[in-house]
Order: sequence, then structure tokens, then C-alpha cells
Amino acid sequence: MRISELSTRSAVPIPTVKFYLRERLLPPGIPAGHRQAEYGEEHLRRLRLVRILTDVGGMPLRDVRGVVDAIDDESRSLHDALGVAQYALATRETGPAGDELHAATEEVETLIRSRGWHVMPESPARTRLAHALAGLRGLGWPLGVGDLEDYADAADALATREVASVRSSGSRAEAVERMVVGTVVFDSVLSALRRMAQESHSAEA
Amino acid sequence: MRISELSTRSAVPIPTVKFYLRERLLPPGIPAGHRQAEYGEEHLRRLRLVRILTDVGGMPLRDVRGVVDAIDDESRSLHDALGVAQYALATRETGPAGDELHAATEEVETLIRSRGWHVMPESPARTRLAHALAGLRGLGWPLGVGDLEDYADAADALATREVASVRSSGSRAEAVERMVVGTVVFDSVLSALRRMAQESHSAEA
Repeated sequence: MRISELSTRSAVPIPTVKFYLRERLLPPGIPAGHRQAEYGEEHLRRLRLVRILTDVGGMPLRDVRGVVDAIDDESRSLHDALGVAQYALATRETGPAGDELHAATEEVETLIRSRGWHVMPESPARTRLAHALAGLRGLGWPLGVGDLEDYADAADALATREVASVRSSGSRAEAVERMVVGTVVFDSVLSALRRMAQESHSAEA
Repeated sequence: MRISELSTRSAVPIPTVKFYLRERLLPPGIPAGHRQAEYGEEHLRRLRLVRILTDVGGMPLRDVRGVVDAIDDESRSLHDALGVAQYALATRETGPAGDELHAATEEVETLIRSRGWHVMPESPARTRLAHALAGLRGLGWPLGVGDLEDYADAADALATREVASVRSSGSRAEAVERMVVGTVVFDSVLSALRRMAQESHSAEA
């Protein structure tokens, strides 16, 4: 298909498609005559992937590129590619430091040990959780490992199914794509569901 | 305490504290002599609240003001204040439109009915969920209500506990603050836990 059809089918304006091409978020089309190129279903799919990560996931383009690179790099093992993609999803956080962060970091370690989870020391999720817990401490709501039990149980149950579903995907590229989209989009899904349930229970109370 | 101590204890630089005062995110101190003011523990607490919402929650200051106003407006009922605060937390989303969004919106309605949830038509969480589901449809992963069952169960169980915990808080202002912080911070906590669990299960597989 030509770029105009690609734009129509993806609902992404032509100038934006051209920008993604220049930024290597979208691979080039096959040259087809004078300043024209032909695009396939894989371009449409990639375009939709970029949009869901930016629109639903709120990811900056630099991070989207990291994800796209991890999907395309065939030299990586699946687990390795999943790791690169997941770490590329990390939000950079600033936040409290000092004693509260130190105490919160210890709690995160204790939690990981108590669940028997295998999590790399450089995992951005560790830092993210520690910052959240440190912020709560600053407001006078210190949380212990026991208080996180319900959340960790829910996360564990969902992750078990999610990893199994990713592993059963067809190709390696599809598996990485599913993991990335699943991680980003289901953050949003879970957050929306939790807010609706809160509203409903608050109305009943 | 003087502004310098407020800055030290909150780890927020003095110019930022002054900015929050000008922007009415922080109530004024009590005048104490020539161009000086005295601040109390409630200022420290409010400062920490503003920081956790911006740092951990990634909220723009305009939305933080909406939350702060809902906390401070004593004329509202608790349920009403919770609603105002929660809706102020909504992220503005752009995303796919057309047939996919239409189908996804129907699914959200079906889900809400099947769970027996009471959710206002204008709830931003409805739109957010519909956009996420529409994005998945665009990638060829249409999800039905059944596929969301695990996520809705997890959200429902957490929300039940969260609403009960908020309602048992001391004052009305504290209840609203807890709900806001809980909603924002636990999005981050749950997301971090889910990513760690995914990494761990992926390593095992």
C-alpha cells in the first residue's frame, strides 16, 4: 500500500508517519518508482504498536525506540529481549531520598526474598517501588511487607498468566511485542478497573 | 517553623516551596514579622502530598491543584470529595477512534453491568479502559469481557479493602488525602510488583 493508505488505515496523519520513518520507529518501505514507496501489513502493525505505546502508555519516543529495537534485534534470546523491552519501559523517577528511601529499599529487598522472586538488582521496578514506599513513609504511612501482601498476590497471579500467554505466542517478535503491549496497556487496564471498582464500592458504603 | 526548615525537612528547595505558595498548592504561613512567615506540620504534610503526586504519580500541577481543592473544600460530602479528587486524577488520553473505539466502549458497558458496578457515565476510567481495549483491537488482540475477568477480580478485591481503609480514616480531609495518594501511589506499586513478578516468572520458564 502507499503511504496515504497506511495513514488512513492507521488513523495516523501522513506527516506523523513520515516523522516516524525519519526517526526509524517505522522501517522504510520498498522503493516503488519516483519518490514513492510500498508498505505492507507489518508497517501498519508497527505503526499501531508505536501509537498504543505513546497514546495509552504515555511513553516518550526515545523509549519507544528502545522497545522497537529490542523487538527487531533477532540476535537476542527471548528472555533477554523481554528484559531489554521491559527495562526500556521504565519511567525515570525522581523522588525522596535519604533515610526514607533507605528504609523503603530494605523493604523491597525483604519482599522480593519473601516471595522467592528472581529480580535483577538493576531492575527499574525495584527503584520504582522503593520510591513509592518512601513517599508513603514521608506522609506518615509506612507500609510493611505484610501490607503489600494483597498487591503482591494479585501481581503474581496476573504475571503467571501473562508470561505463559507470551510464551505461547507464535514468533519471537510477536512474543516481545505482546509482552511490551501487555505490560503497558494492562497497567492502564488494571488502573481503570481499580478506579471503577473504588467508585462503585464508595457509592455503596 | 521558617521556610528554610520546611525546605530542609521536605527536601524541597526553597524556590520550589515559594513557587507552590504562589500557585496556591500550599496555603500561606502565618505572618511573623518583616517578610517572614511561620509554617506548621500541616504545611510539611501538604508539601509531601504535592511531591508524591508529582514525583510518583507524574501528575501535572494543574491536576494537583484540583486534588488539593477537593481536599480543602469542607462543604463537600466525603463521597463527593472522593469523586472530585478521583476524577481530577484522570489522565487526558488521545487514541484510536471509530469502529474499534465503539466496539471497545460496548465491552466496557457489558463488563460494568456484569460486575454490578455503579460507575457514573462520565467516569474517566470508562474512557481510559475503552481506549486501551480499542488499542489492543487495532493490534489484532480483541479482548472480551471474559479475558478481563482476572483483572477485574484483582481490581475488585483491592478496591474493597481500599475503600474500607479510607472510610476508617480519622478526618474527612485525611480520608480524601488517603484515597488520592492510595489511588496514585498504588497504581505505581501494583505496576512495579507486576513487572518484578513477570521478570521472575520469565526467568523460571
